Amino acid sequence: MTAPTLLVLDAEPLPRLGRLTGRARIEHADDSTLAARLPYADVLLVWDFTSHAVREAWPGEGPRPRWVHTASAGVDHLLCPELAASDTVVTNARGIFDRPIAEYVAALVLAMAKDLPRTWELQGERTWRHRDAQRVAGTRACVVGSGPIGRAIVRALKALDVTTALVGRTPATGIHGPGDLDRLMARADWVIAAAPLTEQTYGMFDSRRFGVMQPSARFVNVGRGQLVVEDALVEALTKRWIAGAALDVFEHEPLTPDSPLWQVPNLIVSPHMSGDTIGWRDELGAQFVELYGRWEAGRPLANVVDKKRGYVPGR
Amino acid sequence: MTAPTLLVLDAEPLPRLGRLTGRARIEHADDSTLAARLPYADVLLVWDFTSHAVREAWPGEGPRPRWVHTASAGVDHLLCPELAASDTVVTNARGIFDRPIAEYVAALVLAMAKDLPRTWELQGERTWRHRDAQRVAGTRACVVGSGPIGRAIVRALKALDVTTALVGRTPATGIHGPGDLDRLMARADWVIAAAPLTEQTYGMFDSRRFGVMQPSARFVNVGRGQLVVEDALVEALTKRWIAGAALDVFEHEPLTPDSPLWQVPNLIVSPHMSGDTIGWRDELGAQFVELYGRWEAGRPLANVVDKKRGYVPGR
Repeated sequence: MTAPTLLVLDAEPLPRLGRLTGRARIEHADDSTLAARLPYADVLLVWDFTSHAVREAWPGEGPRPRWVHTASAGVDHLLCPELAASDTVVTNARGIFDRPIAEYVAALVLAMAKDLPRTWELQGERTWRHRDAQRVAGTRACVVGSGPIGRAIVRALKALDVTTALVGRTPATGIHGPGDLDRLMARADWVIAAAPLTEQTYGMFDSRRFGVMQPSARFVNVGRGQLVVEDALVEALTKRWIAGAALDVFEHEPLTPDSPLWQVPNLIVSPHMSGDTIGWRDELGAQFVELYGRWEAGRPLANVVDKKRGYVPGR
Repeated sequence: MTAPTLLVLDAEPLPRLGRLTGRARIEHADDSTLAARLPYADVLLVWDFTSHAVREAWPGEGPRPRWVHTASAGVDHLLCPELAASDTVVTNARGIFDRPIAEYVAALVLAMAKDLPRTWELQGERTWRHRDAQRVAGTRACVVGSGPIGRAIVRALKALDVTTALVGRTPATGIHGPGDLDRLMARADWVIAAAPLTEQTYGMFDSRRFGVMQPSARFVNVGRGQLVVEDALVEALTKRWIAGAALDVFEHEPLTPDSPLWQVPNLIVSPHMSGDTIGWRDELGAQFVELYGRWEAGRPLANVVDKKRGYVPGR
């Protein structure tokens, strides 16, 4: 019996795959070779989660991998109608990014409340200028996205004594439905976007929604860039409809040097790093190896994506 | 019966004192007039807590205020041997700054872990450069100063799942004595200085102590500038004995534009604002009015400073 073929779409080496020696024939592909190799693979590991090649290369018919795993929380970069309609199982890296992203959101919220960006600017100018900072305890946050990441953000903000409301696709205990979003955004001091990118969430933060926010409120996006109509956010910041924002994700990544987003008043720009803490590649590799063990033993996989909805459902 | 004379050492108006109309004859002094007016005051309110005038103006003998209140947590700026030896009661603003300072420390710890200063720098350069950030959960902090501020810092860091050790002058349940400090600093990822300035704490963070810290560790001072030998910290940062530091307080405040501290590698400088959140002047004013009500009714004051030790003892 020959070992299954594991095709890895990678841009840089993935740690921990050495543990699969003898258990898988590991081959590598890049965006240009993926289409040719896909029909010969039993399993596809999408390690280069910045690539959109899977969507384009997925075969309409004929042989294809039985299992696709992506080393990311979001699956928007690989889901296409053909993959969604097929019987191929898709899994994601659910669980790896929750706590780091929650800490990152707490860092941004506290930095904005304490006016740290201005403090750095003044330090560069060798200028001592006292300001009164904001208290975070007692403020209100609206967290959009009720998956593990959104729930971890809620826990982190609650630990800072922020009053939180969680919004998801389907109302449930402790989760508001989309119908409550405008009302919750209107009274929030912090609106945190942590939803998956789906047909329902594409462009959901638009001019109208920034318009319902308070002038003192701030917006944070750690989900996907396409959740936000970037021009609308720029207008909201420039016209001071809202007090500030922080974007870690963008419609087009990486941001190019000529992007206007680098220099919008009260906008913090970071390079899609909210979930990436030292050792994260190791954790992603170990997670895949664990899933591979289940797969080769014929046991049920974990983190199985609902391909119609575009995320792993349930708590 | 005439109302008592309340002398206010102020640089800017203090809110809420209007409530004492008819209950106190309010007079004002500045650094140059304080000495002449002190003998005629029943109560001294030190609202300009950046002034050191009380130490110099306090009368050696003769009439003097029976009560001195300072709108600050520290009392180092007013305690002199004559005041310490007198029967004048000294009270402070215990309780007002605890939570704001704890949030500020959490903001600095998270900002350093997530490399936010570098993110701002790169944003200014329109440069997209991903880095792996540090996870805060699971790190260790050593908080020096076991008063209400130090304890609030411990609570805030624990909420981020940081393992904390608290060091105070006197060992007690949950509080390490000074003898444990070197050992705790040696294994800490974060050393937080939040102690009062006393003879015992003056210059306690010196070259030897920075030398026991881990190269990956960072130091934060929200106590008093004189806790730290600034030259020793600059050396520790320049020679990379430690990974970073944040100072909110300094030996000489405000820092002048020619201070070398503005531009030390991996040092964050902020203008003594950690405890000052919007509305803080109001809270300080209300706190004094409340204490004044006790004093005029002959009831015991709260927040009474142990003038020998230099802080309010007990929990």
